[in-house]
Amino acid sequence: RRGEMAKSTQLIDNEVFRAYATYAAIVLLKMMLMSLITAYFRITRKAFVNPEDTASFGKGESAKKFLRSDPDVERVRRGHLNDLENIVPFVGIGLLYALSGPELSTALLHFRIFTGARILHTFAYLIPLPQPGRGLSWAVGYSVTFSMAYKVLKTAWLL
Amino acid sequence: RRGEMAKSTQLIDNEVFRAYATYAAIVLLKMMLMSLITAYFRITRKAFVNPEDTASFGKGESAKKFLRSDPDVERVRRGHLNDLENIVPFVGIGLLYALSGPELSTALLHFRIFTGARILHTFAYLIPLPQPGRGLSWAVGYSVTFSMAYKVLKTAWLL
Amino acid sequence: RRGEMAKSTQLIDNEVFRAYATYAAIVLLKMMLMSLITAYFRITRKAFVNPEDTASFGKGESAKKFLRSDPDVERVRRGHLNDLENIVPFVGIGLLYALSGPELSTALLHFRIFTGARILHTFAYLIPLPQPGRGLSWAVGYSVTFSMAYKVLKTAWLL
Repeated sequence: RRGEMAKSTQLIDNEVFRAYATYAAIVLLKMMLMSLITAYFRITRKAFVNPEDTASFGKGESAKKFLRSDPDVERVRRGHLNDLENIVPFVGIGLLYALSGPELSTALLHFRIFTGARILHTFAYLIPLPQPGRGLSWAVGYSVTFSMAYKVLKTAWLL
Repeated sequence: RRGEMAKSTQLIDNEVFRAYATYAAIVLLKMMLMSLITAYFRITRKAFVNPEDTASFGKGESAKKFLRSDPDVERVRRGHLNDLENIVPFVGIGLLYALSGPELSTALLHFRIFTGARILHTFAYLIPLPQPGRGLSWAVGYSVTFSMAYKVLKTAWLL
Repeated sequence: RRGEMAKSTQLIDNEVFRAYATYAAIVLLKMMLMSLITAYFRITRKAFVNPEDTASFGKGESAKKFLRSDPDVERVRRGHLNDLENIVPFVGIGLLYALSGPELSTALLHFRIFTGARILHTFAYLIPLPQPGRGLSWAVGYSVTFSMAYKVLKTAWLL
C-alpha cells in the first residue's frame, strides 16, 4: 500500500512535472470556461441550435424563432475551437517535454509564456481587440509548443 | 531488456493508474464511436459535404443533390464536438489526477461518474431526451473534471 | 538535483516511450500545420470570418465582402477537425499503450502505420484524391488506435 502510493507520486514529486501539471490544468480549465461562456450567450441572446433546448419558451412557432445563430455565440465557439486546436497540442507535447528532462527555469518560461498568450488570445477574441492582437497571441502560443516539440524530438528521437 | 520492461510497466502496475487507463480508454473509444455514427447517418441520409464522396452516385447534378446538410448528421456532429470539448480535458486532467496520489476509491468514484455521465449525455443528445437531461449529464461530467483539477492544483501547484 | 533529473528522464529512457514521444510529436505537429494552411488559404482567397480580420482591406462595404466562406478554406478546416477527432484519441490511448509494456517492434508497427495513414489522409483530403482514398486512410488510422485500446484494456482493466 505504502510502496504503491510512493510509486504513484514519483512523477508529481519532480519539479518540472509539477510545473507542467499546474499550467496544463490551468489552460484546460480556461478551455472548459469557454463552454460556460457559450451557454451564457446562448441563454442571454436566446440563440439555440437544438429544438429540445427551446421547449421552455413554449411550443411551435413561438419557440422556433430561438433556433438561430447569433454572432456573439459563434464568436465564443470559434474561440473554443481555436483553444482545442492549440491547447491540445500543448498538453500532449508539454507532457513529453516535461519528461524529456528540461531545466526547470526553461520549462517554466515555456509554460508561462504559452499560458499568458492563450489567456490574451481569449480576451483578444471575445472583446474583440483589433488585429494583430489575436494573431500575435496565437503565434506566440504556437511557437512555444513548436519549441517544446523540437526539444522532445531531439531527446526522444526513435523512428 | 527485462529491466526495461519492468520500468515500462511501473505506472501500469499502480491501481489508480490502471483505473485511469481503463476509463480513459473507454471514454476515448466512446468519442471515436461518434465518427462511425456520423458515417452511418451520412450514408443512410445521403448527406455529404465533400464532392468526391458523392461520385459513386453518378456525375453532375444527380450527385450534387447529395451535397447537403441533414439534421441527424448535424446532431451527431454536435455531440462529437461536445465530446472533444469535455472528454479531452478529462483525459488530460485525469492523467495528472491519477499521478497526484488520490485514494483508489475516490479516484474510481470520479472516473465512474464521469464515464456514466458522458454515456448518458450521448444518449440524451442522439435520442434526443427532453431537457434538462442533456444539460444535467453535461454538468455532472464537467463538475467531476473540475474536482480532479482542484486536487491536481492543490497537490502539484508550482507556478 | 541529479537524482531529480534521473527520475525525470526515466520514462524517456524507455525505448517504447521514446518511439511514442517521437510519433506523438510528429502527428501533433502535423495537426498544428493545418492552422497554417487555413491561414494561408484565408489570406490568398481573402475569405475571413471575423470583421476585425478584414480591417486592413478598408472600411465598411469594401471590407465586408471578404467576410465570406471559401470552399478551399472549409476543406482545410474539415481536415483539421478530422485530425482533432482522430489524433487526440491516438495520443491519449497511445500513451497508455506505451506504458502497458508492448514489444518495441509491435509498438513501432502501430505508431508507423497510424502516422503514415494520417499523413496520407491529409493529402487525400487537400488534393483531393478520389474516394475511397480518404476513407481508407481514415479507417487504417482508426483501426490502429482501436488495436492499441484493446491492448490497454487487456493489460490495465480495473473497472
